Amino acid sequence: MQQSWVNVPPSSDFPLQNLPYGIFHTPGKPPRVGVAIGNEIVDLRAVAGLGFFSDLEFDTRVFGSRHLNGFMALGKPVWQQVRRRITELLSENNTALRLHADQVLVRQTEATMLLPVQVGDYTDFYSSLEHATNVGKLFRPDNPLMPNWKHLPVAYHGRASSIVVSGTDFHRPLGQTKPADTDLPVFGASQRLDFELEMAFVIGRDSAMGQRIGTAEAEDFIFGFALFNDWSARDIQAWEYQPLGPFLGKNFASSLSPWIVPLDALEPFRTASPPQEPPVLPYLQCTGNHNTFDIGLEVAIRPQNAPESVVCRSNFKYLYWNICQQLAHHTVNGCNVRTGDVMASGTISGSAPGSFGSLLELTAGGKNAVALAGGATRKFLEDGDMVTMRGFGQKDGLRIGFGEVKGTVLPVA
Amino acid sequence: MQQSWVNVPPSSDFPLQNLPYGIFHTPGKPPRVGVAIGNEIVDLRAVAGLGFFSDLEFDTRVFGSRHLNGFMALGKPVWQQVRRRITELLSENNTALRLHADQVLVRQTEATMLLPVQVGDYTDFYSSLEHATNVGKLFRPDNPLMPNWKHLPVAYHGRASSIVVSGTDFHRPLGQTKPADTDLPVFGASQRLDFELEMAFVIGRDSAMGQRIGTAEAEDFIFGFALFNDWSARDIQAWEYQPLGPFLGKNFASSLSPWIVPLDALEPFRTASPPQEPPVLPYLQCTGNHNTFDIGLEVAIRPQNAPESVVCRSNFKYLYWNICQQLAHHTVNGCNVRTGDVMASGTISGSAPGSFGSLLELTAGGKNAVALAGGATRKFLEDGDMVTMRGFGQKDGLRIGFGEVKGTVLPVA
Repeated sequence: MQQSWVNVPPSSDFPLQNLPYGIFHTPGKPPRVGVAIGNEIVDLRAVAGLGFFSDLEFDTRVFGSRHLNGFMALGKPVWQQVRRRITELLSENNTALRLHADQVLVRQTEATMLLPVQVGDYTDFYSSLEHATNVGKLFRPDNPLMPNWKHLPVAYHGRASSIVVSGTDFHRPLGQTKPADTDLPVFGASQRLDFELEMAFVIGRDSAMGQRIGTAEAEDFIFGFALFNDWSARDIQAWEYQPLGPFLGKNFASSLSPWIVPLDALEPFRTASPPQEPPVLPYLQCTGNHNTFDIGLEVAIRPQNAPESVVCRSNFKYLYWNICQQLAHHTVNGCNVRTGDVMASGTISGSAPGSFGSLLELTAGGKNAVALAGGATRKFLEDGDMVTMRGFGQKDGLRIGFGEVKGTVLPVA
Repeated sequence: MQQSWVNVPPSSDFPLQNLPYGIFHTPGKPPRVGVAIGNEIVDLRAVAGLGFFSDLEFDTRVFGSRHLNGFMALGKPVWQQVRRRITELLSENNTALRLHADQVLVRQTEATMLLPVQVGDYTDFYSSLEHATNVGKLFRPDNPLMPNWKHLPVAYHGRASSIVVSGTDFHRPLGQTKPADTDLPVFGASQRLDFELEMAFVIGRDSAMGQRIGTAEAEDFIFGFALFNDWSARDIQAWEYQPLGPFLGKNFASSLSPWIVPLDALEPFRTASPPQEPPVLPYLQCTGNHNTFDIGLEVAIRPQNAPESVVCRSNFKYLYWNICQQLAHHTVNGCNVRTGDVMASGTISGSAPGSFGSLLELTAGGKNAVALAGGATRKFLEDGDMVTMRGFGQKDGLRIGFGEVKGTVLPVA
């Protein structure tokens, strides 16, 4: 396997074969585009300033931007040219950039990561059969899986304004809830605060209103992937969600990991989705059976002043609906997508209890507490809890990872 | 009443007391901010270029923008200063600007209006008791009004990317539907395409994540109002919407009128909302009983090559939940709002059958066709139909209107 002249520890998520994009800044310098490798960030604005992209036909000022949108909007041919060039420049026998290492490398520990994309619209799918069934049983014991679920990738629109980058803490939300033992709703702090383990893909290219993106071309519109925590206040959600879906139970905060892993970096981890029965309508059919990705995922809770405990291990490949089906469905009515749109997967649960991607499922609706290291237990999140999600694909000695997305629950403000 | 030196026909929506903001362009000139008066547009970039705002402390380059966001973000004190200044300059005895009339006035018929705001997030409320009850009966005969409805202003997130300015036509959406007489869903053109008569307010000022906007301060965050048509494909919506709410049944197109009427222009039309029983929780309570607006509304359908028929007459004041309650609820969990966010009311129906704000309600779910002029009838919209919505408040000889929002259904693309 090709190595880099930048040191990449064996357990790193960011080998030469990954090269995810993010937006970082350092003291006294403005935000700019970087690529992660090992424990370093390659400053693409600095690389461009040295002329290493000057033969490529795009405006390198996109690397001096506060968001990846400008770069993404250049389209897949440019993404691929740049990826090839950075791969060459960082390869172990290439000295051209290495001679300037002190100008272009920034230690990740010395940088602050920002939200990498300016989010246009945010859509949240609901594509895990296990999650939909688990949650359906709790909210609607008689009717867990709706009749539409196996015919279309159910989704709803979420709130873009409150998507934040990993590390952004937030206050426990207040809201209206309806306890089972009261006649009237009450107002107060959510008592059933939860995480949802998700991944999200980022749209890199606009479509026009009225344009239907077929499953075969869907991946041309997708720039890359990140980890996503769709924080949820279950008590607020349960009272508000009928008939128009989740609103204040979700839109107080959603967390995105800072590094967007290019779709091309995930090629080695292609795998089959679960079989779909009954068969889906033609517009949702895909060719081949390698339309999803084998990416192991985990969620850890770390209470204040206590060690971290992994409470869930899941995998992106468990999802019933793949990303091509999601995007084809989203646009089949002519809905346009835009560079920077975020499309989250919905909670990723497997069939084993330890693979459930939310506390709601792990505790069977708050009935059975989860045991944490050091003797603590959790039915739902408490103030001071930090939740961290991680994920990576691993195959034949190659590890392509996403870093982490984390956030801490602060007390009610 | 103060008159303007610009001619304002008696039936105009745009007297000196209105002064709504929009974005227009003319052949060979870039988009810019204008204010409507009578049949004219006052070009604010040109007015600024003549120095008429030079003593006010803001950067007048906001008037050369493609969207109102830059101007709106300056905040309410600037909105009010500018409104006062334009009122002075256009008043009948003021000659300062009149001397430059040929440089600053553009006939509305010679301008193209653009979407006036860059929409961050779009939220759609569901605030008409009559609409929620009418629709509830059709979708859920046993359970029309959910138990939460009178306790909180139900809302969901809509799609920002497909909000278009009045006059933007769109193709009939394709999608998945489930006819009552088939076991499996089918794919094809929507057969139950509808309008929804709504109004929308535009957020003019950011709030921070974690900040709760109280009902008493909500209006400081609201820049103004427009008409809104939330086009809906009822058959797609009925099949997809459970459990997470409307998605492809709505997001193929939503139409906004081009002129944003400042909240200050609506002061003469303040009135009481319907009484709320049971009482609402303290965070939703408002002082006084003039927290909504008396604005008459109508919807007309014009089939291709046929005359127009008004099919609905309603009023904004029918809404059960007012805008201060909507914004207080939206942010009570800490959700942030941003300049340019659009908050739509939900369909505005009254109690009389002719006041229902959608064909779904007017035809009792497609059972009873609506008669149009010239003998045509409609259960749902047909290709070539143009839908136009209009609205204005009228009192003591003053008419403050919104112009119109219109759009035509094109055949499947």
